[in-house]
Amino acid sequence: MARYKVILAYDGTAFSGMQRQANSRSVQGEVEKALRKLGWKQKSILTAGRTDAGVHALGQVIAFDLGWKHKPANLLKALNAELPSDIAAKRVSVAKADFHPRFDAKKRSYEYRIFCQSQRDPLRERYAWRVWPAVKLSGLHAAAGSLRGEHDFAAFGSATKEDGSTMRRVLRAQWRKLGQDEFVFEVSANAFLYHMVRHMVGLQVKVGQGEAKAEIVKTALLGRNRVRELAPAHGLTLAEVEY
Amino acid sequence: MARYKVILAYDGTAFSGMQRQANSRSVQGEVEKALRKLGWKQKSILTAGRTDAGVHALGQVIAFDLGWKHKPANLLKALNAELPSDIAAKRVSVAKADFHPRFDAKKRSYEYRIFCQSQRDPLRERYAWRVWPAVKLSGLHAAAGSLRGEHDFAAFGSATKEDGSTMRRVLRAQWRKLGQDEFVFEVSANAFLYHMVRHMVGLQVKVGQGEAKAEIVKTALLGRNRVRELAPAHGLTLAEVEY
Repeated sequence: MARYKVILAYDGTAFSGMQRQANSRSVQGEVEKALRKLGWKQKSILTAGRTDAGVHALGQVIAFDLGWKHKPANLLKALNAELPSDIAAKRVSVAKADFHPRFDAKKRSYEYRIFCQSQRDPLRERYAWRVWPAVKLSGLHAAAGSLRGEHDFAAFGSATKEDGSTMRRVLRAQWRKLGQDEFVFEVSANAFLYHMVRHMVGLQVKVGQGEAKAEIVKTALLGRNRVRELAPAHGLTLAEVEY
Repeated sequence: MARYKVILAYDGTAFSGMQRQANSRSVQGEVEKALRKLGWKQKSILTAGRTDAGVHALGQVIAFDLGWKHKPANLLKALNAELPSDIAAKRVSVAKADFHPRFDAKKRSYEYRIFCQSQRDPLRERYAWRVWPAVKLSGLHAAAGSLRGEHDFAAFGSATKEDGSTMRRVLRAQWRKLGQDEFVFEVSANAFLYHMVRHMVGLQVKVGQGEAKAEIVKTALLGRNRVRELAPAHGLTLAEVEY
């Protein structure tokens, strides 16, 4: 028996979210189903974060105890053979016996993609939010500046149960232009509040579109009143969890 | 009454193909359903090409006659409001009364995406073919060279009904590196045979992986025996039709 750490990627479109729920298709539920076919008999896997319905992942982290006679590379293959096509295991390794993907995490990174077009775009809207009127990169840059550093992010999300505090340390918050009309917001923090990235993006896009001044971000942080702009889930991807 | 030309984009995943079929969901069927809600009463729209099940489009072209009292821009909006989320109208314009999207086309362009990874990747496999072992760009370049120009492409696909000939003029056939492990094949021709791009990609990937020499492409063209390597539909996108 050993504790295994697995990095997962998934397309969140067809899931009710990461966390197992009765009567709906969750990432956790599908992974546990796959693991049971490989002889896993415990009640629940451990997970790094509870992504919402529709949120994607490139680097979700889970852990579980399993008696496996072969190498981790074989477990990777066996797991991918059992998982549905919208979930894949990217890496499997043996972790220390008390490794916990959520409590041991030091840093989480998310990406949020937007693109600016007046009409719908079926080939891009699965993984990016269509925004119109178009944003200006200068506005996004100005808005992002105020998000970096240690702040009370109460305006941007709710605290988790374990941690009543809404203080978070944002290590990175920056926009990058990808294509002609496509932008990605890259954000890292020690931890995130519920809906925090989606509120950050919602408010910054308003600034990028010229509908609000960049100072609105600082004002929101200080005022602690919940931001009303919530960017949709499908533009968001959990990129990485670091330990 | 006027003839309208519409450029369509769609995610081909959930369609049986472009062409209307009884008892299955086709792009043509969904577009005609949307048009009927806008007062269109004819039997069938005209289409530029019959993409297979799973093939995507950024620039499929259709045409139809419609009595529409407002501007083409209004028709664009009205059409997008009625179309399902995996199809979008990109542009609407008035065409000459006898415009035919297939017979008037001078040039078609397709893109085929591949990426090289040993494990499944749910966030990329919807629009790209996962290939392993990895390909070398030099091999792809060498293979593509023989495809350019006017050739008998009998080895790469079947002739359409209207045109018994398998001669086609390939105006462009080149590979571009996109990301670290991602490549796109851009190919344009006066017209394509059935499955032609997918056979081209299947054979070139074999060369790129070092499993065959670049000369195999020239040999296939001359020998006219059908290539066995058929790349899957989901990596293919109809990019543009020019008139």
